[in-house]
Amino acid sequence: MKLALLLVGFGHVARRFVALLDEMRPALASLDIDPVVVGITTLTHGSAFEAAGLDAVQAAQRRAEGDAIGPVAASLSTLECLRRLDSQSIETRVLVETTTLDIQSGEPAVSHVADALARGVHVITANKGPVAFRYRGLKELADAHGVSFLFEGAVMDGIPIFNLVRETLPGATIRGFRGVVNSTTNHILTALEQGEPFDRALARMQADGVAEADPTLDILGWDAAAKTAALANVLLDAGTTPRLVAREGIGPATAGLVRAARASGKRLKLVGRASRGPSGVDAAVELVQLDPFDPLGSLDGQGNALELDTWPLGRIVITQRDGGMEKTAYALFADLVTVARRVSSGWRA
Amino acid sequence: MKLALLLVGFGHVARRFVALLDEMRPALASLDIDPVVVGITTLTHGSAFEAAGLDAVQAAQRRAEGDAIGPVAASLSTLECLRRLDSQSIETRVLVETTTLDIQSGEPAVSHVADALARGVHVITANKGPVAFRYRGLKELADAHGVSFLFEGAVMDGIPIFNLVRETLPGATIRGFRGVVNSTTNHILTALEQGEPFDRALARMQADGVAEADPTLDILGWDAAAKTAALANVLLDAGTTPRLVAREGIGPATAGLVRAARASGKRLKLVGRASRGPSGVDAAVELVQLDPFDPLGSLDGQGNALELDTWPLGRIVITQRDGGMEKTAYALFADLVTVARRVSSGWRA
Repeated sequence: MKLALLLVGFGHVARRFVALLDEMRPALASLDIDPVVVGITTLTHGSAFEAAGLDAVQAAQRRAEGDAIGPVAASLSTLECLRRLDSQSIETRVLVETTTLDIQSGEPAVSHVADALARGVHVITANKGPVAFRYRGLKELADAHGVSFLFEGAVMDGIPIFNLVRETLPGATIRGFRGVVNSTTNHILTALEQGEPFDRALARMQADGVAEADPTLDILGWDAAAKTAALANVLLDAGTTPRLVAREGIGPATAGLVRAARASGKRLKLVGRASRGPSGVDAAVELVQLDPFDPLGSLDGQGNALELDTWPLGRIVITQRDGGMEKTAYALFADLVTVARRVSSGWRA
Repeated sequence: MKLALLLVGFGHVARRFVALLDEMRPALASLDIDPVVVGITTLTHGSAFEAAGLDAVQAAQRRAEGDAIGPVAASLSTLECLRRLDSQSIETRVLVETTTLDIQSGEPAVSHVADALARGVHVITANKGPVAFRYRGLKELADAHGVSFLFEGAVMDGIPIFNLVRETLPGATIRGFRGVVNSTTNHILTALEQGEPFDRALARMQADGVAEADPTLDILGWDAAAKTAALANVLLDAGTTPRLVAREGIGPATAGLVRAARASGKRLKLVGRASRGPSGVDAAVELVQLDPFDPLGSLDGQGNALELDTWPLGRIVITQRDGGMEKTAYALFADLVTVARRVSSGWRA
């Protein structure tokens, strides 16, 4: 089955995704999936559209070398690309959304996703914005147009969380969850335990590429809050947003809390959690002391983990021991396979 | 969709499964799945067959009270039940295999499963025998007859392992795994750490119902070897059997090894592992010293965990924090849903 892909955003994750599609040709062929990249659009590096399919690997190469992928002056908007997709001869069309997120609003990803779904275009995204800010509305839009809205890469890179619950836990109830889902803060908390001062630990994370150049969103807990909102929206039907999640972050003063935790044999972790309560879903990101043998407490710097409280399986923990870009790109790949499987089985939302 | 179920074996797990089907009616209805138990057969407590469907909840009640479910003298063999299924009006037929396993041979489960698959009957089982001893042959049989052979409950109760890899990791490569997959030995090792003598710990596990009346299979590592073989066969195409898995167990002398591990800040765990090597798949069950912060090392007595070494997601760990019968029954339920999903989507192996 041919799938026409429109890539909106063409940073590291999208380019790794393009490479993965190429490396995975045999696996895709065995699943009868033939992805054709027909469009790529970026904010500042131009865009390209070719109904018959363009050479995405070559475009990734150009972009990686700092070149534009097409004439910047004549750059196409996402909407313009979606309009061109309308007249595509390939029936199954998929938007691959990986733009940079404004954590205060979820934009521009929310609009891109809504525009695509409303046109009957499937959406796969590594962006947490749409699912953290507007899950219910976007899911309804997807259902109304009989297309998929998938976002495995939004939380814990490509480790299956949303797919795990949807595909392998039929009929089970998710009562709540708690997770260590932000790597920068987990790295810094581990460094603080070892006596490194906060500012030096942060600078080291930035130098190593673990923390962003502007690490504010990680440090203040916004990234964890967005992931917590995303998980709460999908797993608990919370209808929340990152701003409604009670939020703690870390800073130089956290070193004292880390020492206090150690003194009583505990470890300090930044935990995102949510559960169903009598008055709806209660969601928070908070610093908590954990037993060092707790699956979340035993994590080292680069580990992430999520504990699901389920019926009837009790508590299940999924731990990601190795992070990185490649994993997020794989999440897009897995979502693409889900779209194809659904379409070929005649699935409708 | 109607599914005709034949239950072979009617112990705790099968009876909990029957109760779960009843409790899950709303979830099943929303998935358009209508399971009808048409037959139950046991070795020593009689059998019952009713083409229009029988009251399985009532049969479970009788059996739990120690009564036979039908005239023992006129008891039906599995083969006889399968023959009666042939003339069933319900098109989709499913064998639910939960008999007691002979760990040296995988029987009688292997024969039950083979007989069913060869007749075009789907099989779901909580039994590790068939997948540990004869996976390749049974999978080929299932494929040849266009039916499913599913066994999520064989390892780590109902925690999704096989379903996780099959449904959520398309195109990914499993390079190997290591896991703590036997609860009795993990409980005893934890008790030994706390200074309890081996025999007393074992007796306590038996009194608590964690260990079997005859705990030999657990203690000698046979249960872990069967699970390791099952995982290696499915995830690594090992074509092995429990007897080919290098195997260690535990005993009174293990207390010294536990103390030695503690003295160097480690924990002793019985680990089943396998990986692809130059000369095929290397699989073993062995006592190893683990770092206490290792996801397997940090497990307490009742926890089980499996680490998958994958490409491109790196190492993923699934941890089961709460065990039990109900979880295994849920595994059968999840497998039943998979059968129904496949049939309704026109899937063929």
